[in-house]
Amino acid sequence: MEETIKLVYGDGGKYTNELIKEIIYKCFNNVILTSGIDSAVFSVKHGKAAFTTDSFVVKPLFFPGGDIGKLAICGTINDLSVSGAKPIYLSCSFIIEEGFPTKAFELIVKSMAEQCKKSNVKVVTGDTKVVEKGGVDGIFINTSGVGTIEKNYEIKPIESGDRIIVSGNIGEHGTTIALERYKIKVKGDFKSDCASVYKITSMIKEYYPFIKIMKDPTRGGIATIINELSSIAGLSVKLTDGSIPISREIEGINKILGLDPLYMACEGRLVLVVKSNMADEVLQKMKKLEQCRNAKIIGVFTDEQYPMAYIENSFGGKRILNTLDQQMLPRIC
Amino acid sequence: MEETIKLVYGDGGKYTNELIKEIIYKCFNNVILTSGIDSAVFSVKHGKAAFTTDSFVVKPLFFPGGDIGKLAICGTINDLSVSGAKPIYLSCSFIIEEGFPTKAFELIVKSMAEQCKKSNVKVVTGDTKVVEKGGVDGIFINTSGVGTIEKNYEIKPIESGDRIIVSGNIGEHGTTIALERYKIKVKGDFKSDCASVYKITSMIKEYYPFIKIMKDPTRGGIATIINELSSIAGLSVKLTDGSIPISREIEGINKILGLDPLYMACEGRLVLVVKSNMADEVLQKMKKLEQCRNAKIIGVFTDEQYPMAYIENSFGGKRILNTLDQQMLPRIC
Repeated sequence: MEETIKLVYGDGGKYTNELIKEIIYKCFNNVILTSGIDSAVFSVKHGKAAFTTDSFVVKPLFFPGGDIGKLAICGTINDLSVSGAKPIYLSCSFIIEEGFPTKAFELIVKSMAEQCKKSNVKVVTGDTKVVEKGGVDGIFINTSGVGTIEKNYEIKPIESGDRIIVSGNIGEHGTTIALERYKIKVKGDFKSDCASVYKITSMIKEYYPFIKIMKDPTRGGIATIINELSSIAGLSVKLTDGSIPISREIEGINKILGLDPLYMACEGRLVLVVKSNMADEVLQKMKKLEQCRNAKIIGVFTDEQYPMAYIENSFGGKRILNTLDQQMLPRIC
Repeated sequence: MEETIKLVYGDGGKYTNELIKEIIYKCFNNVILTSGIDSAVFSVKHGKAAFTTDSFVVKPLFFPGGDIGKLAICGTINDLSVSGAKPIYLSCSFIIEEGFPTKAFELIVKSMAEQCKKSNVKVVTGDTKVVEKGGVDGIFINTSGVGTIEKNYEIKPIESGDRIIVSGNIGEHGTTIALERYKIKVKGDFKSDCASVYKITSMIKEYYPFIKIMKDPTRGGIATIINELSSIAGLSVKLTDGSIPISREIEGINKILGLDPLYMACEGRLVLVVKSNMADEVLQKMKKLEQCRNAKIIGVFTDEQYPMAYIENSFGGKRILNTLDQQMLPRIC
C-alpha cells in the first residue's frame, strides 16, 4: 500500500481490491462482506424491518471522544434504535480525496470496526470512490443500516401532560467540534458524547406502549428536537430552568463563546416522550445504565393557546426556544 | 426556496425541512418516506434479502443518456439485480456544495423519481448534508438498496466450456463521459447506456440453475469483469475477435482517442456466465427484450495452462487483456 490514497484506488480494479483486502476486509471481517458479491445476502424472518441512511462530513475528522468513523457507525445505529429497531447490518461507503493519508484511513476503518464489535452489528456491504484533490474535503462516509423491529414500537399522539426525558448531558458533541474546529484551547475535559443509544432503547422495550416517540437530538441539538415535538403535537412544551442535564464545563464554555448549548448537537443521547404517569418509572429503569446516570425529566407538554417551546424560570419568566434559522456550526456530523 | 443551496439547508432545522418538503417529498412521494421518522419501517417476509450501497461522484453531472440521479438509482438497482434480488426499497443521501443551483438539484431529484417509477422501486429514507463551497465538487449521491431474493440464485463454480454472454453494446457510458468531460465535439449519437438491468435478470430467472454468476461491468468495463471472472474461476477466458457487441461509432471514436472500449464502463449491461449447453437458450430468451437486441455470446472458459483473459483473432493471434493498473478515467460513476 502507498502512503497516501491514489486515484487508482478507486477505479474498481487491482488497487481498489488491494485497499479493500488490506484494510477494509481485515477490519470488517465477516463472511457476508468478504464473499465479495455485489450485494450482501442474508436471511430475514417474517416481521418488520427498519432501513436508514446517513452521510457524515464532520470536520475535523478526529476529535476528543471519537472520529468520523465511530460517528458514522453510531449515527446509523441510533437512527435505527430510535425507530424501535435492533440494528443488525450496516453498509459503508467511502468517498476519499486523492492524497489522503492511508494511515488515517486505516485508523478510521479500525475505529468503525471497533464500534461495530461493541454494538454487535456487521458492515456487510460497501463501496469506495476516490476523487481528485479538491473534489472532496478529506473523506466523507455514508453508512446505511437495516434492523429488525423486535417489539412493536409505534409513534403515538402526544397529549398534554406527557413528559420529556433526556438520557444524559447535552451539547457535548457540538461544543467539542466547535472547540476543535476553531482551535480554541481551554482547560477541561471536553469530549463528544458520540455513542450508541441502542442499549437504552432496548432496555426500555417493555415501556414502548407508554413511549410516544423516541428521538436522537443531533443537528440543532435539544432545542430543535423540542421544537419539532411541539410542532408534531400541536402543543406547547414547558421546560423547567435548571432541569436540563448539562456539565458545568459545557455550560461555562458556551457562555464564554456566546453559544447556546441547547442548540449544540448530541451524538449519543436519547429524547423520549413518555405518558405522564409512567415517566418516573421509565427514568428509573434508564438510570440503571451507566450512560444514563444523568438522565432527567426535562419538560412537559401543555395545551396553552399558542403552541411553542419555552423554558420557565423559578419566577415564572419564559424564554422562548425559537427554531434555529441560521446554522450555528456546519459539518457537525 | 432560494436559487442556490445554502449552508442552512443542511442544518437539520427549518430550511432542511423546506428543502425536503418542497423538492424531495414532492418527487419521492410515498408514505414510508413522508412519515418522516428516522428510519423507514416496512414488513418483510421470511426468506432472503439483499442489501447494497454505492456512492456516485460522476463528472459531469448531466450527460447524454442520463445524469447523476438516474445513474445512482440504476446503479443500486443493478447491484441488487445481479445478486438475484428484486430491488424494492432505496435510500438516498445527498452531499451538496453550498451555492449549488436549486434548479439543478430539483432536476436531479426528478430524474431519480422518474427512474424509480419506471423500475417500481421506492426511495423510503434519506439524508441531506450541505458543505461549504469547495468542500465537495457540486453534488455527490449515495444510494443504498434492499431487495428480496425471489428465486434462489447462487454463485456456482465456473467450469471449462462455460460461456460468457453480454447483454448489449459495450463502452457507451465511459465513452460518453470522456467526450463530455473533455468537451470533445464529434458527430454521432453518443449516449450513456445507463439503465436498470432488473428486467433482464428477472426474465431469465428460470435459468438461474444454469447461470454461474451475473455481473454488471461498470468501472473498468468488460475487460475488468472478464479478468475478475478468469481469476475467480482459475481458468482462461477466450473471447473471439468480432464477437463483442459494440456500435461502430463507439469503436471509431475510441480508436481516434487512443482508448480501449473494452475498459470503458457500461452502466446498463449485464455479463452472465452460463453453462455451455444452455447458453444459446438463455441468449434467445434475453433477446426478447428490446434492451438485449445486441446481446451476444462473447467468450468461453478454457483450462489452458496459464489462466488469463485474451481475445483470439481469426488467424489464431492472441491479445491479452491485462488487469488495468492505471485508471483510464476517474469519476465515471
